[in-house]
Amino acid sequence: MADTMKALVYRGPEKIGLEDVPMPKIIEPDDAIVKVTTSTICGTDIHIWHGGMPEVEPGRIIGHEFVGEVVEVGPAVRNNKVGDKVAVSCVTQCGECFYCVRGVYSHCTTGSWIFGYMIDGCQAEYVRVPHANLGMFTIPDGLTEEDVLFVGDILSTGYFGSEQGRIEPGDTVAVMGGGPVGMCAMTTARLWGPAEIIAVDINQERLDFAVKNGIADVGINPQKVGNVGDAIRERTGGRGADVTIEANGFKPTFDMAVDSVRPGGTISLIGVFEKPQELAMNTLWIKNIRISMGLVNANRIPELIKLIQRGKIDTNYLITHRAPLNDILKGYDVFGGKKDGCLKWVVTPYVK
Amino acid sequence: MADTMKALVYRGPEKIGLEDVPMPKIIEPDDAIVKVTTSTICGTDIHIWHGGMPEVEPGRIIGHEFVGEVVEVGPAVRNNKVGDKVAVSCVTQCGECFYCVRGVYSHCTTGSWIFGYMIDGCQAEYVRVPHANLGMFTIPDGLTEEDVLFVGDILSTGYFGSEQGRIEPGDTVAVMGGGPVGMCAMTTARLWGPAEIIAVDINQERLDFAVKNGIADVGINPQKVGNVGDAIRERTGGRGADVTIEANGFKPTFDMAVDSVRPGGTISLIGVFEKPQELAMNTLWIKNIRISMGLVNANRIPELIKLIQRGKIDTNYLITHRAPLNDILKGYDVFGGKKDGCLKWVVTPYVK
Amino acid sequence: MADTMKALVYRGPEKIGLEDVPMPKIIEPDDAIVKVTTSTICGTDIHIWHGGMPEVEPGRIIGHEFVGEVVEVGPAVRNNKVGDKVAVSCVTQCGECFYCVRGVYSHCTTGSWIFGYMIDGCQAEYVRVPHANLGMFTIPDGLTEEDVLFVGDILSTGYFGSEQGRIEPGDTVAVMGGGPVGMCAMTTARLWGPAEIIAVDINQERLDFAVKNGIADVGINPQKVGNVGDAIRERTGGRGADVTIEANGFKPTFDMAVDSVRPGGTISLIGVFEKPQELAMNTLWIKNIRISMGLVNANRIPELIKLIQRGKIDTNYLITHRAPLNDILKGYDVFGGKKDGCLKWVVTPYVK
Amino acid sequence: MADTMKALVYRGPEKIGLEDVPMPKIIEPDDAIVKVTTSTICGTDIHIWHGGMPEVEPGRIIGHEFVGEVVEVGPAVRNNKVGDKVAVSCVTQCGECFYCVRGVYSHCTTGSWIFGYMIDGCQAEYVRVPHANLGMFTIPDGLTEEDVLFVGDILSTGYFGSEQGRIEPGDTVAVMGGGPVGMCAMTTARLWGPAEIIAVDINQERLDFAVKNGIADVGINPQKVGNVGDAIRERTGGRGADVTIEANGFKPTFDMAVDSVRPGGTISLIGVFEKPQELAMNTLWIKNIRISMGLVNANRIPELIKLIQRGKIDTNYLITHRAPLNDILKGYDVFGGKKDGCLKWVVTPYVK
Repeated sequence: MADTMKALVYRGPEKIGLEDVPMPKIIEPDDAIVKVTTSTICGTDIHIWHGGMPEVEPGRIIGHEFVGEVVEVGPAVRNNKVGDKVAVSCVTQCGECFYCVRGVYSHCTTGSWIFGYMIDGCQAEYVRVPHANLGMFTIPDGLTEEDVLFVGDILSTGYFGSEQGRIEPGDTVAVMGGGPVGMCAMTTARLWGPAEIIAVDINQERLDFAVKNGIADVGINPQKVGNVGDAIRERTGGRGADVTIEANGFKPTFDMAVDSVRPGGTISLIGVFEKPQELAMNTLWIKNIRISMGLVNANRIPELIKLIQRGKIDTNYLITHRAPLNDILKGYDVFGGKKDGCLKWVVTPYVK
Repeated sequence: MADTMKALVYRGPEKIGLEDVPMPKIIEPDDAIVKVTTSTICGTDIHIWHGGMPEVEPGRIIGHEFVGEVVEVGPAVRNNKVGDKVAVSCVTQCGECFYCVRGVYSHCTTGSWIFGYMIDGCQAEYVRVPHANLGMFTIPDGLTEEDVLFVGDILSTGYFGSEQGRIEPGDTVAVMGGGPVGMCAMTTARLWGPAEIIAVDINQERLDFAVKNGIADVGINPQKVGNVGDAIRERTGGRGADVTIEANGFKPTFDMAVDSVRPGGTISLIGVFEKPQELAMNTLWIKNIRISMGLVNANRIPELIKLIQRGKIDTNYLITHRAPLNDILKGYDVFGGKKDGCLKWVVTPYVK
Repeated sequence: MADTMKALVYRGPEKIGLEDVPMPKIIEPDDAIVKVTTSTICGTDIHIWHGGMPEVEPGRIIGHEFVGEVVEVGPAVRNNKVGDKVAVSCVTQCGECFYCVRGVYSHCTTGSWIFGYMIDGCQAEYVRVPHANLGMFTIPDGLTEEDVLFVGDILSTGYFGSEQGRIEPGDTVAVMGGGPVGMCAMTTARLWGPAEIIAVDINQERLDFAVKNGIADVGINPQKVGNVGDAIRERTGGRGADVTIEANGFKPTFDMAVDSVRPGGTISLIGVFEKPQELAMNTLWIKNIRISMGLVNANRIPELIKLIQRGKIDTNYLITHRAPLNDILKGYDVFGGKKDGCLKWVVTPYVK
Repeated sequence: MADTMKALVYRGPEKIGLEDVPMPKIIEPDDAIVKVTTSTICGTDIHIWHGGMPEVEPGRIIGHEFVGEVVEVGPAVRNNKVGDKVAVSCVTQCGECFYCVRGVYSHCTTGSWIFGYMIDGCQAEYVRVPHANLGMFTIPDGLTEEDVLFVGDILSTGYFGSEQGRIEPGDTVAVMGGGPVGMCAMTTARLWGPAEIIAVDINQERLDFAVKNGIADVGINPQKVGNVGDAIRERTGGRGADVTIEANGFKPTFDMAVDSVRPGGTISLIGVFEKPQELAMNTLWIKNIRISMGLVNANRIPELIKLIQRGKIDTNYLITHRAPLNDILKGYDVFGGKKDGCLKWVVTPYVK
């Protein structure tokens, strides 16, 4: 292998660019080095680009959603070997710390979400994968890289949002936000047998797409119905949704999620919020609701892959754009600006 | 209304017949009288017919799976009124006793399964429904009586079997027994998002039917594969099914259910057993499994109706035969003898 | 019985007084009439008195925490009879509606908390108890009325707070607020086997009382430690409490409860809030916490009585004052003003 | 360190003896070598001694319950260092495999219970600890080695039995078997707040000891009451225990555990069975019970240590005998033969 590789490097707010950087190396005994064969740009990457996460140090390689091929493993790596095609969790997890043994992998004390944030990420030709025994999964024969591309982050995030929503068979689930993460929440919410999934978004095109493709059962556009909570109560005998999932991170959708849930229901927050939100405790103290929030645990990747393999989940509908690493700046512009109907921008290998 | 009605009366082992009997009357304040418009013959009825339940007293009207129309209500009935078209739970439940407040409705101290067993049942023109506030549900507009016919018993039983199986998304579920109850277990197991449902039966026709109609993902015929546990382990990385559901009640399927489950998995028993079974505790003590068993709680009927209404569940495939109450003895013969491909024999009103 | 009785009547903000009012009567078939033998003044009564709940109509008899003797039952009352000494739930529950069957009794569509709020309450000689089959429990021999006096409201509220906190054995639980409800939360939190219960209050006397009597393991006084969250993190390896329970209803304790919980932990809100609260979603979205809130379900009263009977719970420590109904206005002054070290003011029968 | 050490070696049925054997060595990167400072003889060791586990190969060093001091660590050991005083899980667990991520550590594919069974154990001067990152826990200051001696096996086993019993506050729990494991089940069952713990054993001395020391609330001696199930139903309003825990492994106690549980209750099996057992499915199919069984997961050791540290659990009552490794054969005789009132035989270091 060469000594250097191409990678997208963050140099400060609004400053990113492809650079030649040193190849990653094994540091810990359970590290692996993976050749990135397909990756994506994620919403969080856009935040970093704009300087919204000042804890990211200049010089950092961005990116955390990818699949690839194992090219080197440390002496303590047991579960994969060189040559394996793998999907990789965006959340690094040791499996041994206080949080991992409780299933709160997102707070692993030597891991958590660190790719493209605290350590170098995947918008590069190669990437170092720490704690490779727990976060790296072989892609089964018969599946393409794109089939499983989202298990490492947004599909797991949608799953996490549905799981913490504690959906029960027959429930009505409302998802506030019809972007890629919201759609992944709808797709995985189906796994718990709801009677109805309601997509809520001001983008009518996305609503129509979701309903047409069976991702949601019905779409509600706040700009058309006036009050979303009332519209949902009308569909549910006056009670409200059993579960609401907020996948946007803004005040209007936060308020809708709280207002639209029925007494005794659950609000699942998976949007990334930049501001505090007000909770009307003066009326909510009596409403018997749960509000669950958090960073994806990404601990059900093998199950998601199995569901994809058996045809129960398919997220290829999210892929609207593809281009090699060479063109990644264009991807930041198009995906970041929600231009050209872009849902997900997929990065293919660098072309010399 | 007339003073008498037609009803199928049990007069002792192998002795059943249509008789003229007195009309049922309100006894308790929360009783209702329901005109039976559609009902079925259930496997348990066959047991009773053959004398397999000697606690059933001669003179008892048999039957417990039905829908109908409310014709009279007691003074404490709040949730339904005369004229309502209703689906009725086969398990009578007060909602107040030690068991009901724990959700173990099947052991309600003034209810449980009593229809056509301890009190008169539904293979008649009219039936008294005790605790009508909790076990009687209005059929929504747009659904036929047959659409919701099975929610009162076998669909709820299938749901119960899936629920106590504690299925998680991505699981492999094996259902031992492809009769009507087994098919209802498969149909409802889908609600928890398994990656794969395996139907196990020696009746190849039923397996083919289940797979063809998407009720199961794959069928395993014990007469063809030799060892069912091995066949399931082969499909599951050597581990076994995450959940097995026994819907038959015999030794071979009991043993298969125990053998085919993976360590840490759950065995859900919903078959009606006539004999004790041996549990190989010498090897099982170390296997970390759960065995759950019991009579259906029938406490999710509104949710099942909602799922049917939204097109998520459809059990019309079970209806293979229909005839008026006049011909019910033929029904006992055909359904009881598993003749003529009969899955469910539906009883329509008596024709004068 | 006489035609009239003495009762504390609300006539508008700051206007309450003992009056002669008509005796209550059976209205619904499952009503009972109970002679109130011991009752209390609760924090919510003080809110009503001050006009904080304008939905309470003038003329309403206040009070909802009591025990008494059944003097009359409706025709559908099965579970109690005239002469029974009973503890009564402050939350009226039918056991049959959408919410009751889900265990969210506090939102019973024909019940919920209505005593002394929407219907006449217990600060009177007699009271009508709706849905008597589910909310009225015989006091076992060997227990005094005071032993079980709080099961109907504040002990159940404490239990509810602990239950929704999802405490696990070995957990650290912090209770913000050392008043009667907070102490009931600590007393019941013990039932889930925490390693440590931390009481947080600015009233040092209450903290000392709680620790000395084994109600809490340690007390933290915000006025002494500076930052409560830091003090708790110091005791828990830097992580924070596994569960925090807010039993106060004000901003400082709300903020402490949110700040002091560890990632992946649960915040249980049982305080009565009069104002909205701010939730720092900009930092919390990543913290993987649950916030649960609500009105007590009061559905474990038989279990609480059993625990009291077997000596596992004792709340007699809460009773600091006793006086007949004649002196109830003094009780509102003393209990309402937290004067004279008053934890609970107990009302004994009217003395002619 | 010397090249050899003293160890108890199994040479075939009924043949065990102290021998000089080679010192253990680091094999895998996450191995540690621990100097055994206190250990025990466990019931399973007695089984092995008598040849009851023929899969144990001659030459094997026996023993799996111990505490010690870390003397060497592999390069991938992160969570402990040389010099640490540690309690060690009898169940080796990787934290990464299919079973570990589901919390079924007892079926870890590269671990499980292997000490003194598949690999050399702790009745020796030194022992190799595989997967040391997850199964080795520092003993906090202030606790003695004996305070935490049982967390690695029997206290965890008792906890496991209570946990899979799904005890709820107010429950009645009956433990069949009053030996060391049964007493650990009672001690940990307290953590879930039962109203009453019933010890069942034919050894009246053990029953009296358990009740006198507050380990159980009441003792039932099958030789005195006739029918244990009836005696328990008499104490529980005719229903039976909410949870029964079988800690013996024989037919009479198995049958008692099944018979004594109430409808809807849970039977937790932690006894080691040598024979199959009969399950009366002809009556049980309708009883709505769960039967859970399995090998201890030993995954709550840090919580158990914390509970011991805070004075919530104390198992020193189990230690009846102490002697150095030199005298271990006497220990097998006394503990194995249940002589001299022996509950646990503690092994202290070899004395030269």
